Amino acid sequence: MSTILDRLADVIESRKPANGGDPLASYTAKLFAKGDDAILKKIGEEATETVMAAKDARAGGDSGKVLYEVADLWFHTLVLLAQFDLKPQQVLDELARREGVSGIEEKASRKE
Amino acid sequence: MSTILDRLADVIESRKPANGGDPLASYTAKLFAKGDDAILKKIGEEATETVMAAKDARAGGDSGKVLYEVADLWFHTLVLLAQFDLKPQQVLDELARREGVSGIEEKASRKE
Amino acid sequence: MSTILDRLADVIESRKPANGGDPLASYTAKLFAKGDDAILKKIGEEATETVMAAKDARAGGDSGKVLYEVADLWFHTLVLLAQFDLKPQQVLDELARREGVSGIEEKASRKE
Amino acid sequence: MSTILDRLADVIESRKPANGGDPLASYTAKLFAKGDDAILKKIGEEATETVMAAKDARAGGDSGKVLYEVADLWFHTLVLLAQFDLKPQQVLDELARREGVSGIEEKASRKE
Repeated sequence: MSTILDRLADVIESRKPANGGDPLASYTAKLFAKGDDAILKKIGEEATETVMAAKDARAGGDSGKVLYEVADLWFHTLVLLAQFDLKPQQVLDELARREGVSGIEEKASRKE
Repeated sequence: MSTILDRLADVIESRKPANGGDPLASYTAKLFAKGDDAILKKIGEEATETVMAAKDARAGGDSGKVLYEVADLWFHTLVLLAQFDLKPQQVLDELARREGVSGIEEKASRKE
Repeated sequence: MSTILDRLADVIESRKPANGGDPLASYTAKLFAKGDDAILKKIGEEATETVMAAKDARAGGDSGKVLYEVADLWFHTLVLLAQFDLKPQQVLDELARREGVSGIEEKASRKE
Repeated sequence: MSTILDRLADVIESRKPANGGDPLASYTAKLFAKGDDAILKKIGEEATETVMAAKDARAGGDSGKVLYEVADLWFHTLVLLAQFDLKPQQVLDELARREGVSGIEEKASRKE
């Protein structure tokens, strides 16, 4: 299913200035050129927009907006992962590990 | 690759109180029992923790913490998707659609 | 001490389009013209920047950046208060009320 | 007006473990005992709750919730300031400085 995540990670990787990404032509290359803070700011921003979209959807709006904002949030986490030379598969492995350990309920025992 | 996302979505779905999830036994069921606000609060919280982990990693810490916090963030977005009866595949489809449109650079023309 | 908060609230109030604020000439008027979502996005953004500034300060940076980002955050909460026709004095009264009740420790008993 | 901010800052200062604050008896002392990350997490959390309260108020809820959440947010920024040995008066001075420079519109020229 999510070879799309792998493919996106590859495209994102190619946008790094060191890999020829052009900050003038590519939004992602511009984020990399700006560095950590620009990427982290987007994480905070997209999380806030996700919260707003969910509130709007519940108030009678479109749940498609939730989907759209979660996609934005995931996209920027993929950029963050690339910035730290991490791969989406490692996140999936971590999620699988937790689920394997205890039906994703390991978290319950770990912390509130 | 991410049949793990599908599998997690199934497990999360089964934690809904309407599907027999037990808030006393399951962290996820407790989130669903508390409702939208509890889930959204976690989105904000995990985004903040992701930012903190990235700053720590850059200051000489462990980039594994970034991985861990992104996993936490993705997990809670999966709970949010379930809360709005959305599927992770729909997020992946949206990301694929954007990438197909213009090499994920559609966003660049869309907004800053 | 914080007649500055009152004065800022007055200036901010004057920036509302209904009060003659010009979105082309004033940052605050532009925020009001854009509405709730633009203001709320800034709250999320400035909170994230405050977290980043604190991490930077702890990693050897300048604690003046923390001051600066808290000022940004307070400023945008003043805009939010104005958007909901609330006054900073009401926030101060609420804070005083809590402190009066129990030496600001009322919160401890209220929730984690 | 905001001698309350000074008074709160004094009370908060007295909650530092170094000043005799007892983490078992005081919520604020517990935050200080946990350190930077616990305080920063609360900044992110209260910002998210402020956004949620504003959305709820707009959807027909109580604008008093906005007031309450802004008070929570300001309170935790006061704890953060104390953690970095900064005073609320310094934030007010910075806000006054900006307003003096250009009617708080200095920010407009500074950045979007």
